[in-house]
Amino acid sequence: MIVIGERISIIAKKVRDAMMSRDKKPLQELAIAQMKAGANYLDLSIGPAEEGGEELMDWGVKALQEVAQLPLCIDTTNPKAMEAGLKAHNNKWGRAIVNSASGEEERLNNMMPLAAKYNAQIIGLTLTKQGIPPLAEERCAIAAEIMGKAAELGVPMEDIYLDPLILPVAFSQDKCIESIRAIRLFKELNDPPMKTVVGLSNISNGAPKELRGLINRTFLTLLMYEGLTSAIIDPTDKEMMATVKTTDILLQNTMYAHSYLEM
Amino acid sequence: MIVIGERISIIAKKVRDAMMSRDKKPLQELAIAQMKAGANYLDLSIGPAEEGGEELMDWGVKALQEVAQLPLCIDTTNPKAMEAGLKAHNNKWGRAIVNSASGEEERLNNMMPLAAKYNAQIIGLTLTKQGIPPLAEERCAIAAEIMGKAAELGVPMEDIYLDPLILPVAFSQDKCIESIRAIRLFKELNDPPMKTVVGLSNISNGAPKELRGLINRTFLTLLMYEGLTSAIIDPTDKEMMATVKTTDILLQNTMYAHSYLEM
Repeated sequence: MIVIGERISIIAKKVRDAMMSRDKKPLQELAIAQMKAGANYLDLSIGPAEEGGEELMDWGVKALQEVAQLPLCIDTTNPKAMEAGLKAHNNKWGRAIVNSASGEEERLNNMMPLAAKYNAQIIGLTLTKQGIPPLAEERCAIAAEIMGKAAELGVPMEDIYLDPLILPVAFSQDKCIESIRAIRLFKELNDPPMKTVVGLSNISNGAPKELRGLINRTFLTLLMYEGLTSAIIDPTDKEMMATVKTTDILLQNTMYAHSYLEM
Repeated sequence: MIVIGERISIIAKKVRDAMMSRDKKPLQELAIAQMKAGANYLDLSIGPAEEGGEELMDWGVKALQEVAQLPLCIDTTNPKAMEAGLKAHNNKWGRAIVNSASGEEERLNNMMPLAAKYNAQIIGLTLTKQGIPPLAEERCAIAAEIMGKAAELGVPMEDIYLDPLILPVAFSQDKCIESIRAIRLFKELNDPPMKTVVGLSNISNGAPKELRGLINRTFLTLLMYEGLTSAIIDPTDKEMMATVKTTDILLQNTMYAHSYLEM
């Protein structure tokens, strides 16, 4: 499974402070730690960043590229900041991922052309202005909209990661199965199967802190069984990575060796 | 999911010593500990017990029933010892489970009539004298033999727990998926779906000791996703039970509450 490291996010106070003061070091440390722990991509989240987003994203992408030999997942809802990030991305260790488009018309029209222009991959959130529809089939309909837009602009289907959006088990228990089912149904929307991604930790939002890791890990195993391609997680969480590796072993995605946890 | 407590087994030295000296106390302590930890049945395994098996099983069943308000899973390949156990079983807290019949003709012919005679449930191992067939479909064919024998003797289909038999990932990695797939296929052999069971820990046989729990837990989550009815596990293993409960929550088998781990 493809691991997108989640830790360089403006939601974390340490990261926010570093971004605000343009202090590269904390971001670079998180980049190196996640790379060493097995991340395949690094998410760089600056949030909406309506003021100064372009300059911040340009700075952030360059800061990470100085130290990490990994492609980035450029995470903002600000299209101008997204374009600045894509421009700065050097593609030396792989192509960037646009995080993210969705079924909202404006966002789709803003983001998909950027993926086309910069030859980037893109995450498609299966929600609209009305929110996240309850049924997996309804999310497939939104996925089809996103795929249609991509086809129109020449973005290949294999460059899209469909995200079913995960709702917290604590508040929407009946929706957990729907997200798992959506992963299976998304794959069937194309041949070869569509790629998929989740922002995992939302599953445990609102649950007691001591249960969050267990809920996240268990849910990830279920999603991987249905063929989840990638997840935005914390690769420095050793128990999480151990679960990813063990699930990959049991599903025969990787070959068993007594030392598989160390690989 | 139905938890069958595995700890009262002659394979464990402490249990073996207690059985040999007819010292009830260690068995009763294990019975109480497993009951408190959430077991629904207690497995009582005396092995082949060719000499004195009847008396040993009679003694064991009575010892456990003195302290545990749970039905037993009577575990021996000796038909006479099995009958002695079923005779001693008081059915006060539920019906016993015969552990086990299989597709081996002699064993099937020995064990299934006992389930019929004593109105017990029964585990059907899907193996023959030739061993465990590689494909899930072949195990279904053995399951059909077991089900046919049950029908002939008037044992209801809902009293049978089909066991796909789990091979160690360390030596038979490609067979893990087949066992998971067998759980799904077994269910479809009847309507309402057939019940299923596994002796879980075999999945991690031969793996490094520090990985065994993780492999067991992750595999159980996958089996539960396909609808596994019951598992022979150690209910006093807190991480294991936490995984069972969390998986049941995510699959909506039980209702979420912040305190679900304590229930």
